[in-house]
Amino acid sequence: MNEFDVIAEYFAPLTMGHDALKDDGAVIAVPDGHELVISSDTLNAGTHFLEAERAENIAHKALRVNISDIISMGADPLCYQLNIAYPQKPDEKWLKAFCDALMADNQAYNVYCSGGDTTSIKGGVLSISITILGTVPRGQAVRRMHAKDGDNIVITGGVGDAVTGLSVLTAGHEEPLYKMAVDRYRRPRPRHVLASAIRRYANACADISDGLIADARNIAAASGLGMEIDISKLSFSDDVERAISEGIITQEEVICSGDDYELILAVSDANLPLFLAECDSCELNPQVIGKFSENGLKTTFLNTGSLRINALNKGWTHF
Amino acid sequence: MNEFDVIAEYFAPLTMGHDALKDDGAVIAVPDGHELVISSDTLNAGTHFLEAERAENIAHKALRVNISDIISMGADPLCYQLNIAYPQKPDEKWLKAFCDALMADNQAYNVYCSGGDTTSIKGGVLSISITILGTVPRGQAVRRMHAKDGDNIVITGGVGDAVTGLSVLTAGHEEPLYKMAVDRYRRPRPRHVLASAIRRYANACADISDGLIADARNIAAASGLGMEIDISKLSFSDDVERAISEGIITQEEVICSGDDYELILAVSDANLPLFLAECDSCELNPQVIGKFSENGLKTTFLNTGSLRINALNKGWTHF
Repeated sequence: MNEFDVIAEYFAPLTMGHDALKDDGAVIAVPDGHELVISSDTLNAGTHFLEAERAENIAHKALRVNISDIISMGADPLCYQLNIAYPQKPDEKWLKAFCDALMADNQAYNVYCSGGDTTSIKGGVLSISITILGTVPRGQAVRRMHAKDGDNIVITGGVGDAVTGLSVLTAGHEEPLYKMAVDRYRRPRPRHVLASAIRRYANACADISDGLIADARNIAAASGLGMEIDISKLSFSDDVERAISEGIITQEEVICSGDDYELILAVSDANLPLFLAECDSCELNPQVIGKFSENGLKTTFLNTGSLRINALNKGWTHF
Repeated sequence: MNEFDVIAEYFAPLTMGHDALKDDGAVIAVPDGHELVISSDTLNAGTHFLEAERAENIAHKALRVNISDIISMGADPLCYQLNIAYPQKPDEKWLKAFCDALMADNQAYNVYCSGGDTTSIKGGVLSISITILGTVPRGQAVRRMHAKDGDNIVITGGVGDAVTGLSVLTAGHEEPLYKMAVDRYRRPRPRHVLASAIRRYANACADISDGLIADARNIAAASGLGMEIDISKLSFSDDVERAISEGIITQEEVICSGDDYELILAVSDANLPLFLAECDSCELNPQVIGKFSENGLKTTFLNTGSLRINALNKGWTHF
């Protein structure tokens, strides 16, 4: 199979019957009264996923972290471009597992592949870039910059599972004990069921990709606000609690590390019960962990106990 | 400078004042009555550009090959996502040269950077993926599949300069003698001035990225037609003629190699004078090199002289 055979056999079905991969570009209809939201994430072997990771997990992660960005804008995901650079010709077993996983996510999240590029990268490592498009009713995209004084800081679930999963995998701790955390690291769960609730009830939103503290501060800074986070309001999964008690990870790492892909939102007191009810109906376990407020741009931590957090922690940076 | 400082200092100005890089995604307005066209190209060091290539040439090539795809659909380029994987932290001189070149092209082609991702790729080589968006009046995108029996095969300029330039660079021939060809290899020239003429006058279009014969056959095959190419109608630049006569490259390589980013179009007899007049007014030198026709799906070459061409030549493939 050459490059074009691979595209026809494995990637073409991912267009889900849309008119794509036939021209230099694909034509995409944007419904009247809607705007487009666009986002990109690149995942590189050895940096964003372990080099030995299974093809299906790489596929799930690559697509889902992109879907998460669209959801955090209050938009509905539509389609994506898939650019893959292969260090050597991919074998068909790998391709099948990779594309089967994308197909399952296409169906789960109602998206399709609108195109991309399949290339070779001599002397390189596997690199996957996805650019995703979503649609949102005009003027209703949810930004970081519109949090208001007094808004509640809400997260759509516990943080720290992903970094715990990664620590377990890299340190060689017994994986079955940390099955949930490892699965969260490998296969994030974008909160797509909340897209319309985010539009209706949130003043600001971001996904927790760089770390809870860093992403919360991104909202606060963009909105010209400070924030107060009550550490005692944070609750963690059993896996995270066990990893902390066994010294696999510290509580500060849990709070400052990313890759969780829960959402962090600014929600007014008036909208809070409505938003929490939506989360309940979707079987999510949101946490209300503090307030954005007009106290300069200061970050304050309450009830920290023995925990010391660097409020300026930047979360993950590539360099 | 860490990743975020680099983005703020070097990449943020490329948004040209648009509201981007501030959220998990960017919001893009699509004018009423228009559709979106999307395309992606990945460029890897050592495969798509020479490892020692200068930053500004990498930037020009990466953006322009993407712009070319949008133009070949008869669309107007709008904005792009820029995903870069760095094998090591980029130095500021490199970043400045790279981003200055993108800024110049933003202005020349009226596009802006709407986002992207800046990552590290351990043990890898530099990899750049761009996804570009364009807009086109609804229903007017130009496809490969609508060439008609009797349409003329038109190319917007001579082919072979890029492959000649690459051969000169890799074989160490004296570069100043082949200045034009080398420049075409490094910095393709998307024919953006023709976007509206393509919508008005062409039944089908593609850009010549894989090779003249391969890209012509893509149109013929998509349209269910055959084609007849009169080799004597092809004219080449002085650099290409000299490279052939000096044995640096063969005529078959010239015709079958890609990277030229001229356009190949199917134009009816009635529209041909109008399209050629548009090319003239843009100071381009188009060539009418044959016809698409209902002779099965056969490719026929006329006036080949001593030249032997494999009509099934697939052009460039990655594997």
